[in-house]
Amino acid sequence: MIIEVSSTQHKECIEITDQVRALVVESGVERGLCHIMVLHATAAVVINENDDPNIGVDLITALDRAIPDHDGWLHDRIDNNAQAHIKAAILGPSETVQVRDGDLLLGTWQGILVVELDGPRSRRQVSVEIVPTAP
Amino acid sequence: MIIEVSSTQHKECIEITDQVRALVVESGVERGLCHIMVLHATAAVVINENDDPNIGVDLITALDRAIPDHDGWLHDRIDNNAQAHIKAAILGPSETVQVRDGDLLLGTWQGILVVELDGPRSRRQVSVEIVPTAP
Amino acid sequence: MIIEVSSTQHKECIEITDQVRALVVESGVERGLCHIMVLHATAAVVINENDDPNIGVDLITALDRAIPDHDGWLHDRIDNNAQAHIKAAILGPSETVQVRDGDLLLGTWQGILVVELDGPRSRRQVSVEIVPTAP
Repeated sequence: MIIEVSSTQHKECIEITDQVRALVVESGVERGLCHIMVLHATAAVVINENDDPNIGVDLITALDRAIPDHDGWLHDRIDNNAQAHIKAAILGPSETVQVRDGDLLLGTWQGILVVELDGPRSRRQVSVEIVPTAP
Repeated sequence: MIIEVSSTQHKECIEITDQVRALVVESGVERGLCHIMVLHATAAVVINENDDPNIGVDLITALDRAIPDHDGWLHDRIDNNAQAHIKAAILGPSETVQVRDGDLLLGTWQGILVVELDGPRSRRQVSVEIVPTAP
Repeated sequence: MIIEVSSTQHKECIEITDQVRALVVESGVERGLCHIMVLHATAAVVINENDDPNIGVDLITALDRAIPDHDGWLHDRIDNNAQAHIKAAILGPSETVQVRDGDLLLGTWQGILVVELDGPRSRRQVSVEIVPTAP
């Protein structure tokens, strides 16, 4: 199953918990693993709080301070987005969440976020696969 | 299955390999995937050596140098723990380990560690799910 | 299934997408999850572009700037490779990729890379497990 995500800023965090949850419910799987992966090399998927959306802003600020947008990156000679590739590799393109009682098993303050690192972009593809635990 | 972990310091690494291994043995699964996830947004799960516990100390020192505890984070206005959220998002809340011959498949120097980033806390919940590879 | 990887430099990224894909095809699994994990505490697995191999060089440069090779790490007193453990814990030892239509489901610019952080080393072991989605 594919979720499409669009971004409006160069870098931003976009919550997709509800869309992933809807796919889990639709699947009818009661117990198993749900894998969520963005199919791009300049975006990532993380799990964290989104009740205060400033946490996503702080995450991007912290990454930008440690890895400046332009700092002599070799890939910038070809395509001006080395920083997005570096940050995407560090954060990782996917997360796995357990399915329990037909729902995502997340802590109270955990949500699933796509991290856009080279936006704005339309139609970023996030693929979701749900593998049931055998009975 | 839930493992409960308590921390005694503001930040620390706590090994849980033995507790996870016990759940794998108890499950009777011979081959598959074991997913270990902390259900909190200010802690993480990583895999690394714990034979020298200073590796966990070095990991936290390195994260603290790159991402200072207080550095104008926006979320600190609401709750004074933005640094824990940022580090937890970068490390990630979960790891997956293969199950082979009824046991965790880890390298000689690999252990499973909970990284407390906003402690001390009692009863941090770590959920473990084991999905067998179909025969 | 084990893939063996050798490195020729202290730090480098080595693409293994083709070897993993061959194991997926060989398995005959049409749909599921493929888990790829390096069984060492001083190497990692990441997903990113390798069409421009400089992206891997930039990734290592960025990590080295944020986490210098020697910076008073406690583990260096025992074994002179604390930096490799720290970076390996941050990047993580494994990635999960979905299997769809009997093939790895990767974006156009996504490849699977082993990140050697304490080389050169021969015969680094990468274990691959493929769990099918139940029909």
